[in-house]
Order: sequence, then C-alpha cells, then structure tokens
Amino acid sequence: MNAPSRNAIRLAVSMGDPAGVGPELCVKAAAGGRLPADTALTIIGARRLLGAIAADVLDLDNVPPDTPLPRRPTAAGGRASLDYIEAAVRSVLEGRADALVTCPISKEAIAAAGSPYPGHTEMLAELAGGGRPVMLLVNGPLRVAFATTHAPLRDVPGMLTAEGIAHTGVTLGRALREHFDIPAPRLAVCALNPHAGDGGRFGDEEARLLAPAVAAIRRAGIEASGPLPSDTLFARALKGDFDGVVALYHDQGMIPVKLAGLGGVVNVTLGLRIIRTSPGHGTAYDIAGKGIADESSLLSAIAMATAMVRSSRGLRAPRADRIK
Amino acid sequence: MNAPSRNAIRLAVSMGDPAGVGPELCVKAAAGGRLPADTALTIIGARRLLGAIAADVLDLDNVPPDTPLPRRPTAAGGRASLDYIEAAVRSVLEGRADALVTCPISKEAIAAAGSPYPGHTEMLAELAGGGRPVMLLVNGPLRVAFATTHAPLRDVPGMLTAEGIAHTGVTLGRALREHFDIPAPRLAVCALNPHAGDGGRFGDEEARLLAPAVAAIRRAGIEASGPLPSDTLFARALKGDFDGVVALYHDQGMIPVKLAGLGGVVNVTLGLRIIRTSPGHGTAYDIAGKGIADESSLLSAIAMATAMVRSSRGLRAPRADRIK
Repeated sequence: MNAPSRNAIRLAVSMGDPAGVGPELCVKAAAGGRLPADTALTIIGARRLLGAIAADVLDLDNVPPDTPLPRRPTAAGGRASLDYIEAAVRSVLEGRADALVTCPISKEAIAAAGSPYPGHTEMLAELAGGGRPVMLLVNGPLRVAFATTHAPLRDVPGMLTAEGIAHTGVTLGRALREHFDIPAPRLAVCALNPHAGDGGRFGDEEARLLAPAVAAIRRAGIEASGPLPSDTLFARALKGDFDGVVALYHDQGMIPVKLAGLGGVVNVTLGLRIIRTSPGHGTAYDIAGKGIADESSLLSAIAMATAMVRSSRGLRAPRADRIK
Repeated sequence: MNAPSRNAIRLAVSMGDPAGVGPELCVKAAAGGRLPADTALTIIGARRLLGAIAADVLDLDNVPPDTPLPRRPTAAGGRASLDYIEAAVRSVLEGRADALVTCPISKEAIAAAGSPYPGHTEMLAELAGGGRPVMLLVNGPLRVAFATTHAPLRDVPGMLTAEGIAHTGVTLGRALREHFDIPAPRLAVCALNPHAGDGGRFGDEEARLLAPAVAAIRRAGIEASGPLPSDTLFARALKGDFDGVVALYHDQGMIPVKLAGLGGVVNVTLGLRIIRTSPGHGTAYDIAGKGIADESSLLSAIAMATAMVRSSRGLRAPRADRIK
C-alpha cells in the first residue's frame, strides 16, 4: 500500500465479477476523496480493468482477454470472482489486511464456474467460518439480522427454532458491542404473525418459539424486547428505540431496510473469524462499463468495515470520519 | 346538519368505543378548521360524551352512566359501538349520508357484547356487502390492497389462489378509477418469495399463482406489473412508479405503509355497497380521556371519504382542499 500510516486500517476489497460494476466502483471509491482518512485499500482483482486506480492492487491477472467483456454471467467471470474472494480472505486470515469488503458477484456465473457455494456467505463460512454465520443488513439506524434468508416463505415457519432465533439475536447483540461501539445494545425481535399473533388467535409461534428465544437472548446478558408486531417495530427502530432488530425472514427485514432510504444499504456477515461487509446491490450488468454506476453503497461498506475494525480495537473514529 | 350547502358531502361518523379515543377525536376533528370545505359531519354516538361538538349528532344515548368511564374493553362499550355502526350504515344505505367513517372499536369489547363479527370489516360485509370486501391501506402515495389479512403466516401460502389475488387487484384497480380519480391506474403485485422466487429456486407460487393472477388483472383492462420482489417494489411505489400495490399478507403490506411516515394511515374497505374509511389506529384506551389524542388520522380518513365521494360524482376538489 502507498505509505500507510502505522495505525491505518487495511481493507482487502475483492473486485467482484469482472463484467459487473465492481471494477468501476473500486476505481471511483478509491479516487473520490470520500474514504475514511485512516483506511488503506488493496483491491484484489485484475489490474487491466482497474486502470490508474488510486489504491494498491493485488493483480490475479485471470481475466480472459475478451474486449469488450460480455456483460452477463459467464463461467470465466465466475471463476475470476471466486479467485478474488479466496485471495482476499487469505490476506485477512494471514494478517495482511484487517477486514474484507466484497464487490458483487453473480450467483449464476459462479455456478457456471463449478462453485459448490450458492453465494458469498456460504463460501465465507467455509473459508473463514468460526460458527454459524448471520446475515446483517444495515441502513442508517436500521440494523437487521436474519433468522432465515433465501427460503420459500412456505418453508419459513418450519425452519424457525427458538434456538436459531436466539443464536441470531445473541450474535447480533455481541457484534453490536464488539464492532459497532454500542456497549449495551437494545434488541427487538419481530413477531411472525399479524399483531404478534394477537394472543394466539393468529398463530402460536409467538408463544412457542419467540418468547423462549427472547428469554434466551436476555439470559445471555443482552437486552431484548419482543416478539413485537413487525409493522410498528421498524418505525420505532428508525426513531432509535432499538439498536438492532431480529427479522425472521427475508422480506420482513428487507422491505424496511430498503425503504428507509437513508443511504447505502450495507450487508455484513456476522459469525465469521473475519470482518466482512459488502454493498447491498448486485452486479448490475445492465449498467456496467458505462461509467454511471454509483459507488455510494461500496463507500458505505468500506466505511462500515473501517468502523468495525476501529470498534474492535477500542478506537474512536477520527472526527472527520464519524459515520453519518 | 348546520346549513349544509346543497352539494355538501355528508359523512356519517360512528363514534367508536365510548371509552376509547373516538369521542375526543370527533370533537377535535369537527372543531379544528381542518375539515374539507364541502364536508358536513353527523356523529353517530352519545351526545353526553361529545360536549359542545361543532357537528350534528345522532344521539343513541346508550352509554351507561358510569363516570368516569372505565378505560378498557367492556360489554357495555362493545354494545354501544355496535349500535353506532349499525345506525351509521343505515344512514348511508338510506341516502341520509354519502359515506361512512368509523372510529376505532375494541374487538374484545364487541366480542364481550356477543357480536358474531370479529371486527368492522366482517360486520360491514354483512350489513352493506355487495361482494367480497378488500382491505386497502393508504398512506400518502402508497395504496396497498391485501389478498389475505389477519391469518397466521403459516397459513398464507395455502390461502392464496390466483383467483383471489386477481380479485384483489381488479377491485383495487376499479376503485382507483372510480373513487381515487386515477383514470388508468398502474398496479404492482408483490411476489411471495425472496427475489420473486429467483426463477423457481425459492418457491413456485410466482409461476403457479402470481403470474396467472397478473394476467387475469390485465385481461380485466387494468395495467399490472409483477410478481415483483417486494423489498424493492415499495420504494418504487413511494416514488410514484405505481398507483396501487397488491400485497399477499398482512406484514408484507403493513410494514411499508406504516414506515412510510408521510401522514395519517387510512383504512378503506373496498367491495361494499357504500364508501367506508377509518383511521389506521385503535381505541388507545391508555391515552383516552386525557385530551392528548391526535386527530390527524381521523381527519385523513374524513378527507379521503370526501375525496372518494367527489371522485364517484366526477367532481374536482375545491382548490383549498386538494388532498396532500
């Protein structure tokens, strides 16, 4: 890296699918003067797609020489994406970087490349797992962890267990303490049914699964409320009544996170041996290579990874870089 | 009514549970100078709880003489609430009023009074039904109709049918034309599963139920898109890309409606022989009688009922009263 200060926070950024918006976002994020002052980036990717980028590059030189790149999922693009992630994880595990930021990949492309993993999260669990990973989405004051992720809605009630919901809450609560500088986090746990089941009239999961899960989170020393009706809970979280929310299924948490519209959505994987963030969007092949992709969400992911490393070291943010 | 103009829009307002915030909201709404200029209210309730209200009152004089009222669900309060609704519906059906606005009742109180109906909607379907009622929630530009309402999440996938979803969409589309002054409404239909099922990887309802439902809505001459991933659909609806949304279950539509935070949430029942709106909140026994209840949501319900009557008559709003 270019003369990093001794206390710089070193982020390994995987470039993502070479045919997507990843390379362009890396160049813009590195150039824009909107990086935290104490962040040093190393892009793990293909230098030939990164031009005169204002950051260190670990050049894996694995991109096929097609010019222009086909702007769609390909096995070659998928293979390259996987290589970047592997190298980036290794650099964090071996202490050459403090945290990982991943640019978007295509699930279809990595499948075409023969990946046994459906996406980032499963791959990272294998390469850097320490326990069961938990998906956390952050948008401004909304921090939402998920008890289930990409499952058909029909299967969700059968997949939920008190133990699994409690694991999500405890993982979230500990992460808020350790990585988000919130010493005594207040969690809220979503109900599954309308009006939190209205005393059992609309479903029994609140009494059977959710109340025991909330009790288990509290026994682990973390303040937790719930199960609360999810249609009013998120408005309260947005006002600051809660520091984190446990959502039970994808749309329950994603609808409010994406609607809040306060800034870039950042995806964080908790429960790994490393810190990992990513922007909340996909490869956006349709706009890739046109110079119009918006790097705000990648910058939010970089700022969040930086803040998480700082928090785990007990450091305060430099005044100019307090997260908005 | 006090000297109504010949073209005044006459609303019958049922006072709701006498121990809840209904009486106070009626007094504030009638007094506040925030009513549409062409609206004339008749409150159907108990004059003794309405003081010197600046509106006509149809006094049913059925409130027990306890002073002060117990601020909780009682059989007497439930019985009174039911009487107000019945009389208010009758006044609309018999042409003495143009539309119905209902103040909040307690489901527990009406059950204690022996009501066979769990709530307003079922009672209105019986008293003024013309077809299958559809629940519509409105908050600013978000207009969300529900294919299912108060059901356990576990039961939702089994309750959905292509025909039922199409009925919801067609009812919504026609209401937007007839009552909301939107000649060519553009609807969006929510997917059930994450990422709209991602091509069948996370559930088959998108192909099996939702695509046929969207096709049926279009065959009825109403523009409809979908099924669309619900986590991005609502942000688009908020921006104005769609005039109405079909949600498949309670929390899917209620989370964004209540989070949008643009003003009072109004509940509208479509598919009745009468126009009916209500504020989106409950009896709020805990704050009733203290003079602190906020009448904004009732005023929104009154303004919406007025606008719906105007639209069905082909009238434009008086300039000063265009709905915000």
